[in-house]
Amino acid sequence: MNTLVRKSVLDVKPYVPGKPIEETKRQLGLKEVIKLASNENPFGPSPKAVEAMKKSLAGVNRYPDAQGYYLKKRLARHFGLLAENFLLGNGSDEIIDILIKTFVETDENIVTSDTTFLEYEIIAQVNSRKVKKAPLRYFKYDLGAMLKLVDKKTKLVFIANPNNPTGTYVTKYEVADFLKALPGQAIVVFDEAYNTFIDVDDYPDSLDYLRRKNKVVILRTFSKAYGLAGLRLGYAIADPQLISYMERVRQPFNVNILAQAAGLAAIDDKDFLKKTRRMTLEGKDFIYRELSKMGLGYVPSAANFILIDVEKDSREVFKSMLKFGVIVREMSQYGLKNFIRLTIGSQKENRRAISALRKVLTPRA
Amino acid sequence: MNTLVRKSVLDVKPYVPGKPIEETKRQLGLKEVIKLASNENPFGPSPKAVEAMKKSLAGVNRYPDAQGYYLKKRLARHFGLLAENFLLGNGSDEIIDILIKTFVETDENIVTSDTTFLEYEIIAQVNSRKVKKAPLRYFKYDLGAMLKLVDKKTKLVFIANPNNPTGTYVTKYEVADFLKALPGQAIVVFDEAYNTFIDVDDYPDSLDYLRRKNKVVILRTFSKAYGLAGLRLGYAIADPQLISYMERVRQPFNVNILAQAAGLAAIDDKDFLKKTRRMTLEGKDFIYRELSKMGLGYVPSAANFILIDVEKDSREVFKSMLKFGVIVREMSQYGLKNFIRLTIGSQKENRRAISALRKVLTPRA
Repeated sequence: MNTLVRKSVLDVKPYVPGKPIEETKRQLGLKEVIKLASNENPFGPSPKAVEAMKKSLAGVNRYPDAQGYYLKKRLARHFGLLAENFLLGNGSDEIIDILIKTFVETDENIVTSDTTFLEYEIIAQVNSRKVKKAPLRYFKYDLGAMLKLVDKKTKLVFIANPNNPTGTYVTKYEVADFLKALPGQAIVVFDEAYNTFIDVDDYPDSLDYLRRKNKVVILRTFSKAYGLAGLRLGYAIADPQLISYMERVRQPFNVNILAQAAGLAAIDDKDFLKKTRRMTLEGKDFIYRELSKMGLGYVPSAANFILIDVEKDSREVFKSMLKFGVIVREMSQYGLKNFIRLTIGSQKENRRAISALRKVLTPRA
Repeated sequence: MNTLVRKSVLDVKPYVPGKPIEETKRQLGLKEVIKLASNENPFGPSPKAVEAMKKSLAGVNRYPDAQGYYLKKRLARHFGLLAENFLLGNGSDEIIDILIKTFVETDENIVTSDTTFLEYEIIAQVNSRKVKKAPLRYFKYDLGAMLKLVDKKTKLVFIANPNNPTGTYVTKYEVADFLKALPGQAIVVFDEAYNTFIDVDDYPDSLDYLRRKNKVVILRTFSKAYGLAGLRLGYAIADPQLISYMERVRQPFNVNILAQAAGLAAIDDKDFLKKTRRMTLEGKDFIYRELSKMGLGYVPSAANFILIDVEKDSREVFKSMLKFGVIVREMSQYGLKNFIRLTIGSQKENRRAISALRKVLTPRA
């Protein structure tokens, strides 16, 4: 039957997700397992979102609102933009697919970085679009090198900012230069899934590029800071004309009813957002200090995770950590064979992760 | 900016969904509105599914299980198949996209019928794949005419059975002949979204074609009989090899946590399924009788909706029904200008719809 499948589909290296908690318990016979592998919110979902979902459960026999009317209106108010500036997606993953289908012909190309969110390349491959990747420079997007890859056929540039899995970010100065030099047909997509955790001054204000009529698309998500990863809710912000094209490609019922209800409530849950941010930044400082004590190298992160140089095979460290009931992400699929990525959890989880890491990396006497 | 968008995207005629209840209330200032426009379950979601979702709400900060482990295992038990026979989708809409991306190269084609579920053609267009359509014959799929359209480049054949929006079905005898005559590279997709409402003996047993190693993919959904349209949960059943190819194209977190939990519980809710089926068949008989009394023609339906010949502009009838608080589907986007499609509702809703239809179609004295 393998003459039936498309050739480019056979070339795809499928995405390997973080190991789920239940599966790990089942496989290893463990009672208590913590997951610090998928950059999820350790403090649960926004309580306001949970309340809103409860009220919506009885109505899930109806199709979702195909326009996302209320959620777009609420987002518009939040950002001081129009409802027409927004497109809702079944997670940002789906919006990446919509972007490629909307803007990139099969003989055109996409530019991004090496060692970044893997779905840009996977989704492009599935759609038979060419991706050109510049290497990272000191774990950071190298916009200069990316600019050299851009040609007349480049329609989309994906910039994960901060980048996953490195946690590094490109500055407003770097981005300003990049945008100035870019040819007119290229649209820049800023994937800002982790923007809530930024605590630096030179992070770019991508909404300002939008206001200044640059061809930019900003991706945001409810998965991380709002704690709604399981519901699948991401959104794009862009010029209404670009959004209207993307709306032609979006499937009408792509965002489920409960995600719409939860997103609407979560935006107003400022306390939860504040707590998540504060605890994550505190947790990051704690983990930095502990890693330094252990003499381990790490990449300073602008996000809710830390890339750690464990100086040995990442897959082995992953397996050993599992035995202590701690799920981390091994980085071999990203080509970082001696690194693990650790999500910043609750303070209790952070302590447990550091304790396990210490046991795993210290040779027995 | 319209030089940026792909040409085939501009050619797409976007899907026009049924009007939502809340929007109708808002726009017309009505307090009570019933919706019989989207073939939803009028009896709500499965109560067991609602209970299961309640228990899962606190965990939506985690990503969904990318493998759909428990739901696939439960489906396998339900059908006497393997978990590897199943692929889960964000509604069947998404699975149509996955099918096209997995199996149809850009120079290959898709065969289906005219006046059928519009997403086959829309999704193919978005993916720049050619669709060849045979006209219906007496409101029914004409498999003979479709066979004549099949050529060496045909990779997928979509058969909605029963068909939406006509409610007609193709028999097991017609399908057997069709499968026998089909060239080896063509995969037949039976979209059986409405199979629960079948009450005839000559409906094809598509699972039997699968067991006999035909190249078939069966689409089922939790949207209709289980009352979970708002959650987005459909699935494909096929040979494990075909499923494994489709899994390479599927995005890892396409099916949200609550849909997986609800689906798992709904399968066991046999009482709800029985009630839905019984009330729908009773409601169908009631509506048939009332339409006959009014002298209106209709297409006998094997599904939970009825295509009614209103003998005047469908859009006007739609608007007039709205004023009585009844949302039906006007059929102009399907090219059936004098027809409305009426979903079979609860008995109270059916009475109200018939009463409104009578008022709308009877000229005032």
